[in-house]
Amino acid sequence: MGEIFVGIDLGGTNIKFGLFDSALKLISKTSVSVEADIAPQDMVELIGQTIEKLLADNNLSKKNLRSIGVGSTGQFNLADGSMISNPNLTSFKNVPFRKLLVERLGKSVVLENDGNAACWGEYAIGAGKDVQDMVFFTLGTGIGGGIINQGKLVHGSSDTAAELGHIIIYPDGRLCGCGQRGCVEAYASAKSTAKRATEAIKAGAESSLKSVLEKKGEITAKDVYEHLKAGDALAKEITDGTAKALAMVCVNMLHITEPKRIVFSGGMIAAGNVLLDRIKQYFDEQIWRLKKETVELCFSSLGEDSGIIGAAAVAQDVQKQK
Amino acid sequence: MGEIFVGIDLGGTNIKFGLFDSALKLISKTSVSVEADIAPQDMVELIGQTIEKLLADNNLSKKNLRSIGVGSTGQFNLADGSMISNPNLTSFKNVPFRKLLVERLGKSVVLENDGNAACWGEYAIGAGKDVQDMVFFTLGTGIGGGIINQGKLVHGSSDTAAELGHIIIYPDGRLCGCGQRGCVEAYASAKSTAKRATEAIKAGAESSLKSVLEKKGEITAKDVYEHLKAGDALAKEITDGTAKALAMVCVNMLHITEPKRIVFSGGMIAAGNVLLDRIKQYFDEQIWRLKKETVELCFSSLGEDSGIIGAAAVAQDVQKQK
Repeated sequence: MGEIFVGIDLGGTNIKFGLFDSALKLISKTSVSVEADIAPQDMVELIGQTIEKLLADNNLSKKNLRSIGVGSTGQFNLADGSMISNPNLTSFKNVPFRKLLVERLGKSVVLENDGNAACWGEYAIGAGKDVQDMVFFTLGTGIGGGIINQGKLVHGSSDTAAELGHIIIYPDGRLCGCGQRGCVEAYASAKSTAKRATEAIKAGAESSLKSVLEKKGEITAKDVYEHLKAGDALAKEITDGTAKALAMVCVNMLHITEPKRIVFSGGMIAAGNVLLDRIKQYFDEQIWRLKKETVELCFSSLGEDSGIIGAAAVAQDVQKQK
Repeated sequence: MGEIFVGIDLGGTNIKFGLFDSALKLISKTSVSVEADIAPQDMVELIGQTIEKLLADNNLSKKNLRSIGVGSTGQFNLADGSMISNPNLTSFKNVPFRKLLVERLGKSVVLENDGNAACWGEYAIGAGKDVQDMVFFTLGTGIGGGIINQGKLVHGSSDTAAELGHIIIYPDGRLCGCGQRGCVEAYASAKSTAKRATEAIKAGAESSLKSVLEKKGEITAKDVYEHLKAGDALAKEITDGTAKALAMVCVNMLHITEPKRIVFSGGMIAAGNVLLDRIKQYFDEQIWRLKKETVELCFSSLGEDSGIIGAAAVAQDVQKQK
């Protein structure tokens, strides 16, 4: 057995762990749930024990483990490896997280923003593996993302670049959870897509989704796509709004970092080609006429494991650079 | 005399030349006018002769000349130094421009997009000299720009990144010269600012600018600022529209490449603090509440020579990297 890497996806309610070989092929994975108020030292111990168990269950020794990557939401100082704050983990305030993990594990540890980590995974072995300039969107409850410029992640001046969900596309538009108005997240995330459908029905729109709302008390993005496929007009209109918002940010990203490929991932892509085709159509309608653009819009190829794959890919990349 | 550098700003109707020492201090400058249909070979000869005369006039020999930087609008292939097209120079179609200049001059030549070159000048010795992550806007007839990420220009996958004037801020908004609707250039360039004022007056708005339009047949951005300073309400409203559009792109750039500083240059900054303060005010109103941002918004410090300074700075940087 050659070198192995661990990728950790630190979510709001659970932590996913993946064990990978040097080709970033998944050997084994597991997940554990955590409370939002877990103490940093308890989190470190939980991570340490879970990795040790994962290695033992696969008859692997710690000496094969080269390094660990951790993808997480929140604000970091990537230079010193501290977690400044994390909306999902209330006790994490200026925690020297990397240092604590290195002390517990005796191995190299790399922290990364979760959107950036997933982006790097797609760049390393997924939908962006053959390009050097890429933009990546995660379309989940919120919208996150990452930017690859000439084969490197764009981190910004204080490691908060690529907060792509908070690009304003409609000035003075819908209120976003971040406090801004008109963010793409307020239109095109799974949650916002469902919310726009709910609002339309409550405002009196006719739709087959109406019975879903009455029965379940809520509408999900999945409901919207299912009813779209069944021919519901409101579901089509709502999806068009999602697609147009995403097309706008694609146009803008083309004029900003000029990616060769734009990759969408997250729960929303379950909508399939009906969504992707509409994004492409709006993009073609909105983009300038000065030159023919060759940027490619596509879906992620890594699926539900993209978080742990990306974290492991980041860990491996840092080792390569050494 | 140590090494010297030439910076060339290839504009639509004239070419500016600057001779710089190794600290990028201007030794001497000149400019020559050109016709839009000048043949590439004639352009190369004109550049060669002008540089030779500029050197001679300053009692300098060609052997002191280390390299030449050329900033220009148009589409390039920076890797092979060709100019694919140039809206101002109708005969430039897939011209091996750098190769022709090197053959004529016997010196190293670097091509760069003019917005990128001016951005690099500000980064090297101007308003961005103490930061590593910067965004730069030129507010002239159109809007151009440049992006510095970790001390490097962002070029994109085919050297057309940082076309920042064509970020869409108002979907389905004003028609831009590029064919898109709602570009920031269609609101906040000097030309668009003047145009919005003209349209408002023609639509019946009361303003002291009305007599300017009647007398001169047109309104300029300068007129708008002068009347704003004199207290005209329409001039204030128009300037607010310019400031808000620019603030929106600042918010978006913060969430994309996360610069430490955003620098504005070009004719529009003659408006002074009344414009800058309004941009800052809108930025503070629009930006998210998730964390306190420390990005600085400011004006260029290089003034009217920024084009030639930037081109020389790009030339010098390439030499440093060798």
